[in-house]
Amino acid sequence: MVFENPVVKELVEKTRVLWAIGHALGLMSWDTETYMPKEGSMERGIASGELSVLRQKILLSPEIQSLLEKAEKQEDLNDYERGVIRVLKRATRIAKALPPKLVYELSKTSQEAVVVWREARQKNDYGMFKPYLEKIVKLNREAADYLGYEEHPYDALLDLYEEGLKASDMERVFSTIEPGIRRVLEKVLSSGAYPSEHELEKVEYSRDAMEKVNLEILKMFEFPLGTRSRIDVSAHPFTQHMGIKDVRVTTRYEGVDFKRTMYSVIHEYGHALYELQIDERLIATPLAGGVSLGVHESQSRFWENIVGRSMSFVKTVYPILVKYLDFVRKYSVEDIYMYFNTVKPSLIRVGADEVTYNLHIVLRFKLEKDMITGDIRVDELPEIWSDEMDRLLGIRPKNYSEGVLQDIHWSMCMIGYFPSYTLGNVLSTQIRHHILNDIPDFYQKIENREFHVIREYLREKIHKWGSTYEPKELIRRAFGETVEPKYFIEYLEYKYLGFKI
Amino acid sequence: MVFENPVVKELVEKTRVLWAIGHALGLMSWDTETYMPKEGSMERGIASGELSVLRQKILLSPEIQSLLEKAEKQEDLNDYERGVIRVLKRATRIAKALPPKLVYELSKTSQEAVVVWREARQKNDYGMFKPYLEKIVKLNREAADYLGYEEHPYDALLDLYEEGLKASDMERVFSTIEPGIRRVLEKVLSSGAYPSEHELEKVEYSRDAMEKVNLEILKMFEFPLGTRSRIDVSAHPFTQHMGIKDVRVTTRYEGVDFKRTMYSVIHEYGHALYELQIDERLIATPLAGGVSLGVHESQSRFWENIVGRSMSFVKTVYPILVKYLDFVRKYSVEDIYMYFNTVKPSLIRVGADEVTYNLHIVLRFKLEKDMITGDIRVDELPEIWSDEMDRLLGIRPKNYSEGVLQDIHWSMCMIGYFPSYTLGNVLSTQIRHHILNDIPDFYQKIENREFHVIREYLREKIHKWGSTYEPKELIRRAFGETVEPKYFIEYLEYKYLGFKI
Repeated sequence: MVFENPVVKELVEKTRVLWAIGHALGLMSWDTETYMPKEGSMERGIASGELSVLRQKILLSPEIQSLLEKAEKQEDLNDYERGVIRVLKRATRIAKALPPKLVYELSKTSQEAVVVWREARQKNDYGMFKPYLEKIVKLNREAADYLGYEEHPYDALLDLYEEGLKASDMERVFSTIEPGIRRVLEKVLSSGAYPSEHELEKVEYSRDAMEKVNLEILKMFEFPLGTRSRIDVSAHPFTQHMGIKDVRVTTRYEGVDFKRTMYSVIHEYGHALYELQIDERLIATPLAGGVSLGVHESQSRFWENIVGRSMSFVKTVYPILVKYLDFVRKYSVEDIYMYFNTVKPSLIRVGADEVTYNLHIVLRFKLEKDMITGDIRVDELPEIWSDEMDRLLGIRPKNYSEGVLQDIHWSMCMIGYFPSYTLGNVLSTQIRHHILNDIPDFYQKIENREFHVIREYLREKIHKWGSTYEPKELIRRAFGETVEPKYFIEYLEYKYLGFKI
Repeated sequence: MVFENPVVKELVEKTRVLWAIGHALGLMSWDTETYMPKEGSMERGIASGELSVLRQKILLSPEIQSLLEKAEKQEDLNDYERGVIRVLKRATRIAKALPPKLVYELSKTSQEAVVVWREARQKNDYGMFKPYLEKIVKLNREAADYLGYEEHPYDALLDLYEEGLKASDMERVFSTIEPGIRRVLEKVLSSGAYPSEHELEKVEYSRDAMEKVNLEILKMFEFPLGTRSRIDVSAHPFTQHMGIKDVRVTTRYEGVDFKRTMYSVIHEYGHALYELQIDERLIATPLAGGVSLGVHESQSRFWENIVGRSMSFVKTVYPILVKYLDFVRKYSVEDIYMYFNTVKPSLIRVGADEVTYNLHIVLRFKLEKDMITGDIRVDELPEIWSDEMDRLLGIRPKNYSEGVLQDIHWSMCMIGYFPSYTLGNVLSTQIRHHILNDIPDFYQKIENREFHVIREYLREKIHKWGSTYEPKELIRRAFGETVEPKYFIEYLEYKYLGFKI
């Protein structure tokens, strides 16, 4: 038994209804993006709103709160029991801090702003979006003040997405990786060791054939399709778990540049595997889910980049590609490796390669932090964006749509989300470092299709714990150290300046 | 505004969360039958259970109940306002009457019994299922006693599925239709006016082609696929509404005897249309749903039988069939009409034709009523079943699987459900009678594909009200009379002994 203390056991039972509401909201969110008839969105919105409010109300109910207080006073609790209390205390703290009026304003503003943002991006009209962004910054600053912080108001927002993360943590990360990336990037570009583009990026594929490729890759990973998972199609790829035994991924088929859908599938597989490998004894408890966005992103990026973009994986996947995509035949394994690993300073974050990706986050981190303190005003944002892009990557957006209007996050009132992407990228290389120590023939295992060895490693180190430990503690227990950005640069240097792994 | 009284308005707002839980449960149920990965069922079960209990708890909370009491005392309420109070009072009465222990027992027994029933049916082993059925009868009798009744304990159970329905109502219906059906059946069989089988019943079809037929029929009905509805595949066809703007149907493709999937689609279309045509001002309120199983079944049967099995509809659908199903070409419209309208005493309820179907319900009504009073013991059930089948239809089951084990309902602890099927059949012919008065060229409208005229008629008479009026009142307001079984016999006589409509 993971829960033995009777008070914690009762707490887990009494909060199961919160898990159930989360299950329902998860399914509703999955359905909204996949199968819901278009006009169902209005009623879906009402239902989601009602259930979200209900969840907060139950969490803050005297019954749960007094049980939680009682549980806190228990002695000799095990790690799982302490985890339950930590997770519920954190949720309580956030729920109590934010006044309902502010939560309502954030939700309402987000609903309106997303619609305006879509149109603004399409019309390349920053002026349309500006008043919304001003309001969003203001509301987020208010939220930060209500949530409280020790060092920087941005810390309060970061913590919403990555428990315990501080601006100073990210500054430490960026101060290592920014110069490292710029050094590697300069050398790669001047040496021409990796191409900046590839003709396969323009080649069209048939959706049927590509679906088979994706399915065969998932089969190779032993993804439990039909038994504990599914793959469907949505406008933007995502992973949604309804529980430990029901985790679903999506992808999209753009019809050209097949690596895009392929890597989206491998990326989402990484997210899904995390949820699927959580200890089944944690089912329907507060611990039944990945612990944070950053740790989640480390899993998706590990599979996408560390495994998926390696030469070993290219060798492994090559026969599958050749089997279904006729046009691949004329390319060698090395050609495909180059197609998968182009390096090019570009304007759009989501299309960025391994080397340049985090510079996009450097930019956003700086802008978000300074918007929250008021050091950057919303109306000067596009200019600063352009100047920073120029400084970081040597290119300037020609319009707002490929600059400040490219991401959906701000319109959804999410400020503080972006750094978890970099955290995930860094962590994925840290895991690579340790897996190479523990499984020296890691790359050979990929070539042999022995993915279960990798899966088991991740299960033991990270997945099985669910949300038992907070992110920093989870990493410390797994690898005996905190998040360490040097591994990211070591990886880039090894791969892009040294050996084509 | 449909709700003007401030107390009722507040009641509607405060109970919106109950609607939201219903929305979530509806989606979960749809997903369970369509896309859920197999092993997701355990967590789905936990989530459904938690949310069902939560819904009852909120309904019975002092906040809602005191508001409901206050609302009851208001004067000059309009029909919608009174409808809200009626629906919530009824739900409260049922929730209060049944002790949580009994609800738990019913739910637990059902979960186990369904599994046992499936195996028992497959193995043709009544002995396996008998102890469960005994328990199910006992629990239902207890439920009846808790719920209370004036005339017959079975009334308390009938009311769960059809608000206000009593055994005496059904006896009145059956006393008219049973002899009528037997008279018509005898004549049809001896005259040979309708065939008892058709060679098309053995013809295989391609699923792709049949999907196109079904889609084209739905298109002809202007079913809002993609905007407010979907069609998917499931083991048993059903309709699920998540709201007035999101109503989904399913069908199945058995690969042979194409009328089966075609009529399942038309049947479910009838259910879906009811939900889709409810007044949009009732969205997310206690009135946002069809009022009862019987009224719902009248809608599905109206489209399936009155519209769908008419000669006019055969003429309308014939070009669609010929377009996609090559093998149909060699049959005339009249041949297809006969294929759609075979009449044959058979053992299985769900496969029964328009003429014999309700005799299967006569049997179940009698058995259920007598099991609840103890006049029939579970161990003598198979023999009585066989004797009754012989008396009603002149055939005896050769085994339990085609006799007493054929239906899932009892294993799901549902006793009192079956009569709503007959109620629906009778009502569908009553609607036919009135629509022919009000729209004399009703059948011509079908031939002209002017289905919107029929839809509007049903919307005004029945659909738009949602659950505003209790079933008996709804019918009285629509047609100026109560449920009148004579129309059913008139219809059978007209169609099967007179004119092939």
